[in-house]
Amino acid sequence: MDYAKISQEKHEEWNGKIGMVSRVPLETKEDLAIAYTPGVAAPCLAIQREPELSFSLTRRGNMVAVVTDGTAVLGLGDIGPEAGMPVMEGKCVLFREFAGIDAIPLCIRSHDVSEIVQTVKLLAGSFGGINLEDIAAPRCFEIERQLSECCDIPVFHDDQHGTAIVALAAIRNAAKLLHRSLEELRIVINGAGAAGQAIARLLYRVGVRQIIVCDSHGAICEGREGLNEEKRRLAEITNPEHRTGSLADVLPGADCFLGVSVGGCLTKEMIRTMAEDPMIFALANPTPEILPEEAKEAGARLIGTGRSDYPNQINNVLAFPGIFRGALDVRARVINEEMKLAAAEAIASSVPDGELSAEKLLPDALDRSVAPAVAKAVAAAAKASGAARK
Amino acid sequence: MDYAKISQEKHEEWNGKIGMVSRVPLETKEDLAIAYTPGVAAPCLAIQREPELSFSLTRRGNMVAVVTDGTAVLGLGDIGPEAGMPVMEGKCVLFREFAGIDAIPLCIRSHDVSEIVQTVKLLAGSFGGINLEDIAAPRCFEIERQLSECCDIPVFHDDQHGTAIVALAAIRNAAKLLHRSLEELRIVINGAGAAGQAIARLLYRVGVRQIIVCDSHGAICEGREGLNEEKRRLAEITNPEHRTGSLADVLPGADCFLGVSVGGCLTKEMIRTMAEDPMIFALANPTPEILPEEAKEAGARLIGTGRSDYPNQINNVLAFPGIFRGALDVRARVINEEMKLAAAEAIASSVPDGELSAEKLLPDALDRSVAPAVAKAVAAAAKASGAARK
Repeated sequence: MDYAKISQEKHEEWNGKIGMVSRVPLETKEDLAIAYTPGVAAPCLAIQREPELSFSLTRRGNMVAVVTDGTAVLGLGDIGPEAGMPVMEGKCVLFREFAGIDAIPLCIRSHDVSEIVQTVKLLAGSFGGINLEDIAAPRCFEIERQLSECCDIPVFHDDQHGTAIVALAAIRNAAKLLHRSLEELRIVINGAGAAGQAIARLLYRVGVRQIIVCDSHGAICEGREGLNEEKRRLAEITNPEHRTGSLADVLPGADCFLGVSVGGCLTKEMIRTMAEDPMIFALANPTPEILPEEAKEAGARLIGTGRSDYPNQINNVLAFPGIFRGALDVRARVINEEMKLAAAEAIASSVPDGELSAEKLLPDALDRSVAPAVAKAVAAAAKASGAARK
Repeated sequence: MDYAKISQEKHEEWNGKIGMVSRVPLETKEDLAIAYTPGVAAPCLAIQREPELSFSLTRRGNMVAVVTDGTAVLGLGDIGPEAGMPVMEGKCVLFREFAGIDAIPLCIRSHDVSEIVQTVKLLAGSFGGINLEDIAAPRCFEIERQLSECCDIPVFHDDQHGTAIVALAAIRNAAKLLHRSLEELRIVINGAGAAGQAIARLLYRVGVRQIIVCDSHGAICEGREGLNEEKRRLAEITNPEHRTGSLADVLPGADCFLGVSVGGCLTKEMIRTMAEDPMIFALANPTPEILPEEAKEAGARLIGTGRSDYPNQINNVLAFPGIFRGALDVRARVINEEMKLAAAEAIASSVPDGELSAEKLLPDALDRSVAPAVAKAVAAAAKASGAARK
């Protein structure tokens, strides 16, 4: 199916994929006096006395801003804030459909970290959470870090953590299927952008120690010249053997390839150098690092992609709606590591042991039972870790 | 009815008066591929090539941000951005109900003009229009002026212009009923905040020359000490006879009193000093400058208030939904003076000549035929004045 053509036509027909509705009656003068003036003064004054009440007396407690600067939209790169809007609206649709969350797109006309931080910071009082989206690395790391420090609501860069959480769920189930422990896996991540770095950090967090991350210059290791601050820090927790060279140089012996890079960069020959029963997660979209049929021919045992037309789709929609639902439900201040791990565990557990197979490492992206399960686990983790306000 | 109590209870029950919905199907993988990845890349790229398409390929063309800093909310003053949210949500409900506009509240945690301007400026690509709301004077003037210069979409401070437009419509119909021409009226405006100043400017614009504006120090006139920049400019177009003194000092002989000040400040004695058949518009809320029954006893011929429980309610809801509807329909760059005057004319004309009476100077606030009429007039004025982009 020619999705580009159909999508363009549908977008022309739709004139926008989201819409704001009223949740209150407005037929009589009494209705107006209760929802608006003069009655509305009462909830206003209540919030003035206790600002926390803004979460329940307005929509704030269920409202998420989907924020982008339009610099890393899909695989299209820096196409500008307005051009990123169709993706942001799509995200808002997913928030609504999978988690009953009211989300609105905010595209910011700036590439400047402090301008973007300041804009979101000043608006935090209108929202229960901030979903950062399609902001280029390394700027995205600094923006998230600064916002997390200055905002009283969760700030979550989905391209990093959403991808990392679903990838972890997939690897967790892949390891389970092969009766391997996560800790022993040797994992090579190709791509050191937002997703690649976040995946490496989350895998490290769950005990994986043999991780090598490659960027366009090859393996990242301590002491490599020209590393920026983020990659320098990444080198501290990865590549313990200080291996250098290209992806092809560091892949031999690896149990798992995880690509968040560019289509076609992984060859059959490279897969043949990996350890027995290799796992191949080729997430580049729409063209994966290697096509599943080719990976299989080269001996890959378990294969996942970012695409919906192959089994084992690593799709963020398995994570972010439930994560925000859980965070909003307990009015979390942050989305911390405990909550991310709980989400990954809940996604992985959504595939019952009896159904786990090479064709089914993850639940279907449209499985509506996943988000509630993730929300429940995330809310519990928020409470246990002290991130919950209620 | 105890609106405060009922409104508080209802707000606790509602958990927000607005909600975001999806306008597209999302049942199958095809739906997902069309509304989201990979199909969504097509409209993204179309907008990148031609940014103007963001108005039609996303909801931008129907989306208005209701922006406040929470410093002049209702008559409550500076209660803070979060506490202003129930009013902003109410406004969004009115946008939806009366004009089919998708509006979202954005409360900004700043009192600084340049911070507020910068925040809204950077977000302008997400919206088709900006409604500024409940921002204290004189900061509101500077914010609107700067934003109008730097934004490619209409910026409209409703407390100024919405009030001024509806007040003008009321005065226009009052003059008609008394067979007077607008130009000859002697009008005293009590209150020199956002609304008072905007009313004076709009009346000047339609040819009224005998306007005196009073603030808490009395009549504003050229040369009065301590006037800020805005009031100094106001003095240039008002009070041609350079009258000084209190409201009571300048009211004798006036045809029209228009209060946007504080409850109870106008006495029967003061009304008795006015010209024959005086018009009294006492808009302070919830307690007007003088109660209608008292004004009548003192000889007022035509009376309006801001309240829904008396005839002739001067309510902004008669103006802003239709004004934005018209502006969005022709993708206006600004809401200019021609559009404001067209709106006032359309509101006034919504009361047919045969129905015009002392009890019916304006259409009912809940009359759903007004916004479409206003929208049509505003769109035509935008086209005629060159403000329309389509």
